[in-house]
Amino acid sequence: LENSGLIEARPQSGYYVLARGPVVPTSRAVEPSTPQPVTLDGVTRRIMRDARDPHLVPLGPAVPDPELLPLENLRRRMSSIARRNPERAMRYEDPVGLRELRAEIARRLITAGCAVTPDEVVVTNGCNEALALTLQCLTQPGDLVAVESPMYYGFLASLETFGLRTIEIPTLPESGMCLEALELALSTHPVKAVIGILNFNNPMGSRMPEERKRRLVELCAQRGVALVEDNLYGDISFEKRIPEVAKAFDRDGNVILCGSFSKTLAPGLRVGWCVPGRLLERVQSRKMATNISSATLPQMVLAEFLAEGGYDHHLRRASREYRQRTDWLRALVLDAFPSGTRVSRPLGGFVLWVEMPPGTDALDVYDKAAQCGFSIAPGCAFSSSNKFSNCIRLNAAYATPKVEPMIRKLGMMIKDVRI
Amino acid sequence: LENSGLIEARPQSGYYVLARGPVVPTSRAVEPSTPQPVTLDGVTRRIMRDARDPHLVPLGPAVPDPELLPLENLRRRMSSIARRNPERAMRYEDPVGLRELRAEIARRLITAGCAVTPDEVVVTNGCNEALALTLQCLTQPGDLVAVESPMYYGFLASLETFGLRTIEIPTLPESGMCLEALELALSTHPVKAVIGILNFNNPMGSRMPEERKRRLVELCAQRGVALVEDNLYGDISFEKRIPEVAKAFDRDGNVILCGSFSKTLAPGLRVGWCVPGRLLERVQSRKMATNISSATLPQMVLAEFLAEGGYDHHLRRASREYRQRTDWLRALVLDAFPSGTRVSRPLGGFVLWVEMPPGTDALDVYDKAAQCGFSIAPGCAFSSSNKFSNCIRLNAAYATPKVEPMIRKLGMMIKDVRI
Repeated sequence: LENSGLIEARPQSGYYVLARGPVVPTSRAVEPSTPQPVTLDGVTRRIMRDARDPHLVPLGPAVPDPELLPLENLRRRMSSIARRNPERAMRYEDPVGLRELRAEIARRLITAGCAVTPDEVVVTNGCNEALALTLQCLTQPGDLVAVESPMYYGFLASLETFGLRTIEIPTLPESGMCLEALELALSTHPVKAVIGILNFNNPMGSRMPEERKRRLVELCAQRGVALVEDNLYGDISFEKRIPEVAKAFDRDGNVILCGSFSKTLAPGLRVGWCVPGRLLERVQSRKMATNISSATLPQMVLAEFLAEGGYDHHLRRASREYRQRTDWLRALVLDAFPSGTRVSRPLGGFVLWVEMPPGTDALDVYDKAAQCGFSIAPGCAFSSSNKFSNCIRLNAAYATPKVEPMIRKLGMMIKDVRI
Repeated sequence: LENSGLIEARPQSGYYVLARGPVVPTSRAVEPSTPQPVTLDGVTRRIMRDARDPHLVPLGPAVPDPELLPLENLRRRMSSIARRNPERAMRYEDPVGLRELRAEIARRLITAGCAVTPDEVVVTNGCNEALALTLQCLTQPGDLVAVESPMYYGFLASLETFGLRTIEIPTLPESGMCLEALELALSTHPVKAVIGILNFNNPMGSRMPEERKRRLVELCAQRGVALVEDNLYGDISFEKRIPEVAKAFDRDGNVILCGSFSKTLAPGLRVGWCVPGRLLERVQSRKMATNISSATLPQMVLAEFLAEGGYDHHLRRASREYRQRTDWLRALVLDAFPSGTRVSRPLGGFVLWVEMPPGTDALDVYDKAAQCGFSIAPGCAFSSSNKFSNCIRLNAAYATPKVEPMIRKLGMMIKDVRI
């Protein structure tokens, strides 16, 4: 049964009956792509613009459901801190970030297998800034960076802006980035950095098994290539525990770990962080050179929220809900889409990767969905080499019964598109 | 009398009796420096660290007096918006910034002689980010940038981080950057950008006369070199009106105008802005690639504050106070410091540039001041070519009678140091 994809074993949780349909083997390739410059066409910019359109139900963009964020708690805390300590809230904060917040981030990292002091943490404006500062420390325009394939389109937009070239490493829905392909890439090309979302990958939902994380860290260290780890979704686990980060296996500061609270607490606070390892001083300088420091009040709010211990409880509740929504959406897609559709089976986060039958044009589906008032994320945006044209990413954070008609409509569109 | 420096004419304001001592002719040079890489020694980093030390009275760092900021108003507004609209306050904002805020910024720019639409404005995390994004669009590491001399040390730190070289243009306390020297620099070196604080220069306090601004804009346009204008202090005018920006004379989008609310409303909100002219799309992309968007709530707070029209009243009150403090501090310095000391006569902002008698070691004075519980900014930090070792910048924002003993002590120290 397990091999047929109808049930699955989850570590320490027994067997689960699955919706019909096997796990997606989206990519069977084990070879890296050839290096290429990143040049986005208008589609990705349109997707990023549509992601902010309040008139479109966000079934594509990876935005959390506001109802699963502790907004009222954060709001009250914000008012309270602004009242108790307006002078501090309105003045420049330390460029590397509020010390109390850095201490909370360091404490939380213990659970992910990582021991760092608050002085090794730099607070940033979201995870994206952590990655941007890191990449700018590691590369010059024209340099080559190894990325997962498919890869979050926001990264590709950053890489294009920074004038970087990519080499795409096939990424599997179960185990993540293909290490054999990466090894081949590192041995044949002057790669300056490897970027990966190893826990609950966006868009695949995969979690790289711990043993493979260790091998990845060793491989990068041996080759002298920095590993930039994006752990944005690491806290939203469908399993009993928070997974370890690759940084846990780092011995020489070669892994740069980036994260944020945008997916779990509030995107608009723009609070992320970076543990830059051997790049610490350079990332610190670059943060100050870029915008002196992050806004003060959001840092104070998060430091207090984390110190009071409500975050774990909140995460358990939100993760349970996202798991249910993800399972529900997966079953619905397999029911509503044409036969031959394959859907990833995430272990965390809240995105689903859907492979539609060959020949389906996801861009066409995207246009039609927008006309019907909702957005999806077409697969072509997740690569700079014209891959994944029959794939889409769906945002399971919004997967409540009220979106069922949209998903069913999507299924009908896809059937139409194929005729 | 005017020539002797004992009285001065102020446009539309009659004559003012001055404290003894002439205006500082800090620089008599009219030639640009030779191009050189920016390499800060530990001193500048220490100054920047000390600027955030709550145990030191900030008589050097250019921080506004919290008592002259409308903190209570901002605080109430923050609570109110977070209560009325928590969902919007906590979600991602448009990468280019909240539309209502961009509209208010465009409206305000009319007063400074500049007509732009909200779509031509990009909101940033402070003025520093506006400058950083602009410089990153204009230059590659190793490129040459023309800067004022003396120049705000925070810029130098950014330029060092970005791997840029500078050519220093002598800047005069009355008229600002020497255009003849700039012309020579542009005709003999491959300069990629000119950066200037033209209104109420930091640290000189000078305001470049309108006719010179026009010539500067024309010169840069003729040479095809971008002019990056920092108008951070432009709203704090000691004269009747807000001065025009150089951008007002721009015909082809070659001037990139940057500003913020950090000096007039609250540094910790980290809200600045950029009117990037011909770089608009590139700055927009780079903003998104750097940190997706700025924090949402601070933008909502400022948009509302500006829309309600209290800003002009607040500015008049704060500017009047800063003018009094600047005049008072100037007179006190001339009284307390050794004879031969020269002090700038700012027309806006809140910093004073003090030239002590030749041979005085400002770094030594800086160390001694720190031991006494207050900070000053030594002149050597304002250049990357070992100039201004006998100069200091003072922060007049904190110049109330309670700091008189510190300034008198400073005078004694300087006399000691010279012995």
